[in-house]
Amino acid sequence: MNRYEKVFSTIESCEDAIVDYAVNLVRFPTTSGNEKGAQAYVKTIMTDLAFDPIDMWEPDIEKMHNHPAFISKRKDFKGSPNVVGILRGTGGGKSLILNSHIDIVPEGDPDQWHYPPFGGIVENGVIYGRGISDMKGTKAAIFGAIQALRKANIRVKGDITVQSVIEEETGSAGTLACALKGYQADAAIIPEPSGFKICPAQQGSSWFRIHVRGKSAHAGQRYLGVNAITKSTRVLTAIKTFEDHINKEYTSFLYKNVPIPFAINIGNIKGGEWPSTVPEHVVIEGRMGVPPGLSLNDAWEMFERWIKTETANETWLAENQPTVEWFGAHWGPAQIDPNHAIVKTATEAYSKVCETSPKIAGTPWATDGRILTEFADTPALVFGPGTSAHCPDEFMKIKDLICYAKILAAIIIDWCETDAL
Amino acid sequence: MNRYEKVFSTIESCEDAIVDYAVNLVRFPTTSGNEKGAQAYVKTIMTDLAFDPIDMWEPDIEKMHNHPAFISKRKDFKGSPNVVGILRGTGGGKSLILNSHIDIVPEGDPDQWHYPPFGGIVENGVIYGRGISDMKGTKAAIFGAIQALRKANIRVKGDITVQSVIEEETGSAGTLACALKGYQADAAIIPEPSGFKICPAQQGSSWFRIHVRGKSAHAGQRYLGVNAITKSTRVLTAIKTFEDHINKEYTSFLYKNVPIPFAINIGNIKGGEWPSTVPEHVVIEGRMGVPPGLSLNDAWEMFERWIKTETANETWLAENQPTVEWFGAHWGPAQIDPNHAIVKTATEAYSKVCETSPKIAGTPWATDGRILTEFADTPALVFGPGTSAHCPDEFMKIKDLICYAKILAAIIIDWCETDAL
Repeated sequence: MNRYEKVFSTIESCEDAIVDYAVNLVRFPTTSGNEKGAQAYVKTIMTDLAFDPIDMWEPDIEKMHNHPAFISKRKDFKGSPNVVGILRGTGGGKSLILNSHIDIVPEGDPDQWHYPPFGGIVENGVIYGRGISDMKGTKAAIFGAIQALRKANIRVKGDITVQSVIEEETGSAGTLACALKGYQADAAIIPEPSGFKICPAQQGSSWFRIHVRGKSAHAGQRYLGVNAITKSTRVLTAIKTFEDHINKEYTSFLYKNVPIPFAINIGNIKGGEWPSTVPEHVVIEGRMGVPPGLSLNDAWEMFERWIKTETANETWLAENQPTVEWFGAHWGPAQIDPNHAIVKTATEAYSKVCETSPKIAGTPWATDGRILTEFADTPALVFGPGTSAHCPDEFMKIKDLICYAKILAAIIIDWCETDAL
Repeated sequence: MNRYEKVFSTIESCEDAIVDYAVNLVRFPTTSGNEKGAQAYVKTIMTDLAFDPIDMWEPDIEKMHNHPAFISKRKDFKGSPNVVGILRGTGGGKSLILNSHIDIVPEGDPDQWHYPPFGGIVENGVIYGRGISDMKGTKAAIFGAIQALRKANIRVKGDITVQSVIEEETGSAGTLACALKGYQADAAIIPEPSGFKICPAQQGSSWFRIHVRGKSAHAGQRYLGVNAITKSTRVLTAIKTFEDHINKEYTSFLYKNVPIPFAINIGNIKGGEWPSTVPEHVVIEGRMGVPPGLSLNDAWEMFERWIKTETANETWLAENQPTVEWFGAHWGPAQIDPNHAIVKTATEAYSKVCETSPKIAGTPWATDGRILTEFADTPALVFGPGTSAHCPDEFMKIKDLICYAKILAAIIIDWCETDAL
């Protein structure tokens, strides 16, 4: 039995531990500001697995404000610690960062769930819950792989750094804090749910807020006013045609066969305040995907110009132009060389476990990988199991987690290197 | 100088008092639940003008719950008194109710106002402020007319009852409380801002709430979800075609030349909660106009069926039907005989003051008149100056108030009767 077979079989025997990690993590409702308990739990896992040092700290927002990639609406990160643990290698070998965020998006309408969002229910080999796929399941798989390597007595040369970070969903402040503390490595894996696709490119994204103005009047004489909700449907149409445009102009082999490579989502709408009054103001918020190769600034400028042009053929909107704000979170696109050694290592590890070739692609969303690639001198590859995220009944198959833990173990063995057998 | 000329000239000399009443009333921000101070002020005016009795009471919600016309979201009416004052006539003659509400709709976005909504600013002969037109200006005109009749030593035979009521904007509970206390008369005038049109008919209206469902997903893969905001635009279209339909089916000479006699307003919309998540739920609220001659129940049933039919040609909506609720306020339509004596009296009074014939029409909105007509045995006519309501820079021209006070005085003289000169 070679090293790989040994660790793979050990991972299979660790299945209960991996599921336990995953289920326990899901039961912490770690929306922004509520990560502390889960991170304390992560620290205990690291302690059990002999990580040393383990660094748990609340990032100092004052020290981050001036960084060009800093984004946050928070006043401070009190109660929201990062946890970084290092497993020192035996010396030599390449180092690796395994980065996963602990924060989750809100669970949405509980009525749309068949499982309690924070119940950590396991049924027919599937774990359900907010964050299981994005990305607590793979955090469990990371620890499963490391536990199995220990049990199989396989030590590697390079250092392994595990980062459990806050604030990914709101702009990457947690990973930025890691970068600013000096954490780096020869490569990083971001196990976001790419459906086992190996992603050297990740699209950027930016939140927008559009204000549409109307003119109020009494409902019964609505013809004396201008309905901002009705007018906003033209803006929705303009957003759609911009999405068509950007996907025609920016194409990449990494996004072939994707229905909408660079999607624009209308995330929420709010307007009017009284059923019997013609509404004078609508706010639309959403998320624009930004193709690798297009800067955020250029994307912003193109979008603003498009909305202006596409609504200018309507008299009221031409005179009362919708305004665009870029608020809250934005993430630039990023990519590493598709021929980078970490891509090759991940590809081979996948093939070893799955006995087939993986797909090489770009992500449909931004990740913390950009911060590592651009600001921590650590080329980051996005690669993880699962596909569901930000939806009711978010789930992860246990067999995919076990498979992914095996692939991670193989990546660690190959990238960080062991002594020859 | 005859009685009319005498009271008209007295009203002109009372202009400052009328403007004072109006400005003071506007300065009370009497949204639902906040009427107490303004009503206390109304009571002092009534006391000064020798109304007796004056009845100021907080309606007992327990006694109203079972009435078919009762609507309110409030738990009680603490802090929200009605005020009713009676000026006893000398005996004989016909009695008259003058009914105006003290509550206002919210002021909306203050940035859309050039004048402070509760400032009671007077500029170039115009009073600005929330509620001046709907309907504090005419409350001032009522008291102006009565003050002038006193000063001119004109006493009438019939009783005059002035009702200053709460909760008109939210369903007529204030006027219903007056009806349940037994207040009634031979006719009533509701001085809502009909633009000096004399309105024997008033349309009903009803608030609706429509839920549109989607399916959430991550923004970057929005094609895996169903966007409830995008789907809701089909519902907006269906509402518009229903408005077209109802205005084609229900016509009346009282609504000729009105751009949209029975308007349906989309009042507010709210959906989604996160820019990066495909929204799974949208709520649309609005107000449907109900033509006189159509019952509320029939209107509800027609609307619901229309929304269902018009969205059923879209696969998702056919399987996830939007649901309609009738929440909050609704007012049935109402009408009195266009040949009723009060219509004739008001028409003659208008002609006496304005030296031209008034327009006879139907209102674009519901009023408390329905409660008086249907539940207080008091045929109610809607007739008042001004047209602006529920909008920024709501205004009333002082000359229109003075003109209206004169018409009211003439109506009182003719309807309640004086002894022959």
